[in-house]
Amino acid sequence: VSDAGQWFAEPPIRGWQQRFQVRERLFVGDSPYQHVEVLDTVPFGRMLTLDGAAQTTEADEHVYHEMLVHVPLFQHPTPRRVLIIGGGDGGTLRRVLQHPVALAVNVEIDELVVRAAREHLPGISAGAFDDPRAQVIIGDGAHFLQETELRFDVILVDSTDPVGAAKALFSADFFRSARRALAPGGLYAMQSGSPLLQSAELAEVARALASVFPSVRTYLASIPAYPGVLWSFTLAARDGALELPPQAELERRLAASGIQTGYYTPEVHRAAFALPAFVAALVRGEPRVAGHPLPGR
Amino acid sequence: VSDAGQWFAEPPIRGWQQRFQVRERLFVGDSPYQHVEVLDTVPFGRMLTLDGAAQTTEADEHVYHEMLVHVPLFQHPTPRRVLIIGGGDGGTLRRVLQHPVALAVNVEIDELVVRAAREHLPGISAGAFDDPRAQVIIGDGAHFLQETELRFDVILVDSTDPVGAAKALFSADFFRSARRALAPGGLYAMQSGSPLLQSAELAEVARALASVFPSVRTYLASIPAYPGVLWSFTLAARDGALELPPQAELERRLAASGIQTGYYTPEVHRAAFALPAFVAALVRGEPRVAGHPLPGR
Repeated sequence: VSDAGQWFAEPPIRGWQQRFQVRERLFVGDSPYQHVEVLDTVPFGRMLTLDGAAQTTEADEHVYHEMLVHVPLFQHPTPRRVLIIGGGDGGTLRRVLQHPVALAVNVEIDELVVRAAREHLPGISAGAFDDPRAQVIIGDGAHFLQETELRFDVILVDSTDPVGAAKALFSADFFRSARRALAPGGLYAMQSGSPLLQSAELAEVARALASVFPSVRTYLASIPAYPGVLWSFTLAARDGALELPPQAELERRLAASGIQTGYYTPEVHRAAFALPAFVAALVRGEPRVAGHPLPGR
Repeated sequence: VSDAGQWFAEPPIRGWQQRFQVRERLFVGDSPYQHVEVLDTVPFGRMLTLDGAAQTTEADEHVYHEMLVHVPLFQHPTPRRVLIIGGGDGGTLRRVLQHPVALAVNVEIDELVVRAAREHLPGISAGAFDDPRAQVIIGDGAHFLQETELRFDVILVDSTDPVGAAKALFSADFFRSARRALAPGGLYAMQSGSPLLQSAELAEVARALASVFPSVRTYLASIPAYPGVLWSFTLAARDGALELPPQAELERRLAASGIQTGYYTPEVHRAAFALPAFVAALVRGEPRVAGHPLPGR
């Protein structure tokens, strides 16, 4: 599957597929959890795949990681302790550590992902694993959340899609554990899949989160290496209603941080929550969504 | 190229390609301008292709047409006369006629496109060609603009990419003719290609428009059947600075129109102008764009 005819492609969904020309397969391995590869692709440079699904690439990883991390961390006025579940490539950890946090705990279930990424995709973590504020734990994120007595300002779930090892990270039980582990005012954010190709899954995540958290909002970004490109994240607040900070306040927070970005801006932060009509209908739980550009999904 | 192995794909760009499974080829023809096909695809239903490039599909045409039409027509307080150049499938004309316009002139160079679309994609124009307010002219849009004594509130360019027949529609000369044919307060809008795959072309359009119009702004939408999905449009004002109407005013205009949408909303209208950092850098004309997710483009 991975590089037949020098192309990498995920299996087509409903007759739709994007594919990437491959120069070389740099790493292949199997862990107890999944099949891990690192490919060198023509359009996006090196790419990590898990069980044949594109996870991240050198060229576009910043889009995904900036939007997963900077939106909740600039949304929260003073994030000091952050928990990351998944994210074994280190790109999320790296962006978290760009903020003035005191502690970033990163719980990744699959040591092989960390090892392959550190060796073959060192530009993604860019030294983050060695930061003294980082604590990397190889273990089960759901189990960690049930046991931990730490309380976090932000919890980020940077997982594969809701199949296999990551399935438990999309359940209401997991969301309850996450909410319990948040400090007052805490925020929870996760990647929540393609509104085009995984619309049922996105609707289910929105429903299950709303059964646990008082305020839940979906936001979007364009991530070229992911199927369908348009991608969703979901943000939830432990307490009260999620209000977007005013533009000027986001600008102040970004300037104070000194963080440089390639995708995120304060304007993009606010605009990412403006959902196309069909996505808004999806996350409201409407059973039939008029205007979905991929009918039947 | 078109349906080898039952798949339709545009040629890969820098080793990146998306493709669509094809059930049947419904129409094939050649005009003096281009090769025209209508394919029945699995993911998006019927698709119009010109010279092997996807133009529009039944399933996602509303995203493109709503964003090309409703953004400028709700941006303008009272659009009465509208000119469309290109748009032979009728989807742009149909959305223009949903507004209380008095006249919509549609100048399409290629009669074969109109004929193929009316026969095989009737759901896209949905009767618009027969509306008494519509005037359809088969001819050269650039020539029409030079000769016309009509003045339009909005001019929309719904063209193929800047190669072949459409190349003239991307030049400063053409933009000058367009500005001359706008009434005071008039707006000009065009599709301006992929910020990922055609970034040099987008930067050039922004530069050339800014040499003719006092105010130019780029906006974005996610159009699944187009390569890279993330797509740009550019809006220009004949006079003064382009200010986005307040949310409440856009809501008032949409409600007054009674228009139903699948993608456009007043929030999306405003958010579409919030450009990711790398797109903002592109349209500002920065020679090297940090953070572009497809390096080298």
